[in-house]
Amino acid sequence: MSQQSLSRHDMEEGSVFAPVFDANGLIPAVVTHAETGAPLMVAYMNAEAVEKTRQTGEAHYWSRSRRELWHKGATSGQIQTVVEMLTDCDQDAIWLRVLPQGDGGCCHVGYKTCFYRRVEGDGLASTGEEKITG
Amino acid sequence: MSQQSLSRHDMEEGSVFAPVFDANGLIPAVVTHAETGAPLMVAYMNAEAVEKTRQTGEAHYWSRSRRELWHKGATSGQIQTVVEMLTDCDQDAIWLRVLPQGDGGCCHVGYKTCFYRRVEGDGLASTGEEKITG
Repeated sequence: MSQQSLSRHDMEEGSVFAPVFDANGLIPAVVTHAETGAPLMVAYMNAEAVEKTRQTGEAHYWSRSRRELWHKGATSGQIQTVVEMLTDCDQDAIWLRVLPQGDGGCCHVGYKTCFYRRVEGDGLASTGEEKITG
Repeated sequence: MSQQSLSRHDMEEGSVFAPVFDANGLIPAVVTHAETGAPLMVAYMNAEAVEKTRQTGEAHYWSRSRRELWHKGATSGQIQTVVEMLTDCDQDAIWLRVLPQGDGGCCHVGYKTCFYRRVEGDGLASTGEEKITG
């Protein structure tokens, strides 16, 4: 069901899942570690990625650079087992609480998280996160 | 500095903060509770909101509905004190670890988080989160 057919009340407090995709057909997906709450990554899903994630219990995204469905970990082994999939009040964001598989990594740069730098002073500083690969 | 002037290596592993804004001049900002890691909200920042957040230590966003700078909590009291501001490998997302002030709420629907429903079966189910206001 599309969001256009839901009242604001039903959208915000109802039980119908009606994710709102942007003009590119995408919805942002935030990913945290299910046990620690640690930030892992932000990616995007199209409708197919949402459905594949629901059906398989493994995170699927839309790769904006490769322009294709992306089963996270299919090649790296860094599968993300979905413990909980949430949406927000206006259903224009997805939140995945996951357990990272394989070597526990997430980021192509080699870290367990894509968020390994903090904004500090005029620039960026390491959070102290260490590379596990790469 | 804009991201166009940075090499991929500097973008991903350097100390220059060069947030990548989308075609609308916005970057997604993910917000978690600094102590518990609990999901709170997803919002958007324009360049001014990024700067105000850095300067004040309180979360500022761009309200897409009101089309104006949004100092979170200015009217509700639900100020978000920023403990850590992170960016990711390709600097196209911001992550705020915050301490919610006031009544500890976050969502206009009345919850401490905007993510009070999980995707379950064919629809949405409550996570058990209870309203604190509204």
